[in-house]
Amino acid sequence: MTGEPRIGDVFGELLRDALAVATGIGPRPLAGGRLPRPVIEIIERDDGLINGAPAAHYLDGPEDWQPHDHRAVDRVHGATLDVGVGGGRIALLLQERGVPVTGLDTSAGALQVCRRRGVRDLVHATVDEHAASGRQYDTFLLLGNNLGLMEGRERAPAFLAALAALARPGAQVIAHGTDPYGTRDPVHTTYHEHNRRRGRLGGQLRLRLRYRELGTPWFDYLVCSPEELAELVHGSPWKLVDVDNHDAPYYLATLKLTG
Amino acid sequence: MTGEPRIGDVFGELLRDALAVATGIGPRPLAGGRLPRPVIEIIERDDGLINGAPAAHYLDGPEDWQPHDHRAVDRVHGATLDVGVGGGRIALLLQERGVPVTGLDTSAGALQVCRRRGVRDLVHATVDEHAASGRQYDTFLLLGNNLGLMEGRERAPAFLAALAALARPGAQVIAHGTDPYGTRDPVHTTYHEHNRRRGRLGGQLRLRLRYRELGTPWFDYLVCSPEELAELVHGSPWKLVDVDNHDAPYYLATLKLTG
Repeated sequence: MTGEPRIGDVFGELLRDALAVATGIGPRPLAGGRLPRPVIEIIERDDGLINGAPAAHYLDGPEDWQPHDHRAVDRVHGATLDVGVGGGRIALLLQERGVPVTGLDTSAGALQVCRRRGVRDLVHATVDEHAASGRQYDTFLLLGNNLGLMEGRERAPAFLAALAALARPGAQVIAHGTDPYGTRDPVHTTYHEHNRRRGRLGGQLRLRLRYRELGTPWFDYLVCSPEELAELVHGSPWKLVDVDNHDAPYYLATLKLTG
Repeated sequence: MTGEPRIGDVFGELLRDALAVATGIGPRPLAGGRLPRPVIEIIERDDGLINGAPAAHYLDGPEDWQPHDHRAVDRVHGATLDVGVGGGRIALLLQERGVPVTGLDTSAGALQVCRRRGVRDLVHATVDEHAASGRQYDTFLLLGNNLGLMEGRERAPAFLAALAALARPGAQVIAHGTDPYGTRDPVHTTYHEHNRRRGRLGGQLRLRLRYRELGTPWFDYLVCSPEELAELVHGSPWKLVDVDNHDAPYYLATLKLTG
């Protein structure tokens, strides 16, 4: 045995169990078949770093959100695509406010959780796949650190082009990012250096998620500074028009469709 | 990069951070250098199963213990060796009750945490190493599932002999175990079957612990039924005299020194 996980819908299984714990409905994870076990998302980085984080926050109501999440939803206007809808916490609030919102995710299990929680318009696709649909939006949300979906220098142009293909004139992107370079922790600074030496952005993380017997393939997830973001956006159909860093190192970047 | 951890004192680092979170003293783990991050112990099994569990319970006061922990400490008499003293929660209560207790652990960091919390008599060793000390005890505690330290058929005789070498006449072992065979979860039943096919006990887990950049080597940890325990004890200097399974699948096994 190698200790390697089976590839599967990690995020969907995780959210399904988190929902069962939160609602008391359905089979819940138990230790020894007896004691409730909190649902923990495990994130591995390719240098051997590993972190566990309770998954319950994916289902948090607005009263438990970070302040930047509130500021993000207050910037929404028009038809909105919630990219990486996850457990649906953002989409549910927008629906309540009467905003036409579509939840997009690549996790079938996450979409099931969204549906059970009442999110009405859901699409199982990447942004590239969804770009072929002909649907059009005024606002794109990349919350919960989902600026990371830009991955790095190679992926960013195609990702931004796919969003532009889905965009109405005047459309905006509201993206939540984290500036990774404030730390002096050698675990992170060494990783950033190693990344740069191999031609990647410092905070271009190579990660996989794990939950119980399941793992995702390794994937890139970008944690970048606002300056790096400006460079990635440069030459795309989008323009970086605002960076709200009141909760630094977290920030909200607003992109506007040009032309 | 391979995703492999660096070998280190996982348990000690984990407990040190858990103590910092619990007391508010010393550097605490933060997400993005800003938001408090709970300390999560990550346990990998060699079939790819992974679980995260909050580490705070290692520091729990008696009011938060499981009932079997209370019943275990009520059985203590005489000089006591707490095998795998961990964060010292059991040793601290025994000290308060005036029981002469020695905390034994292979984690230097765990012993530092115990010292800071007020545990007075601490030894950094395996039971085999400590057996050479000439110290003698009336009670050996293997709590927090530490019956697992018997590992399996190969290790159990030497482990039980080392405890016997440290034992006064009439000594007892109070061990907390978990019967793993009540589950129908195929993730576990398949693992048990695979273990038996390679000549191991079904619940002879091959594990490693991980915390941040650190990992332990892979090690065996035994989860067995009371019947399997009886077989392992048979022929040793100990006799299985009681199994308290009021909190099944957890149980407290009491062994008595023979002769």
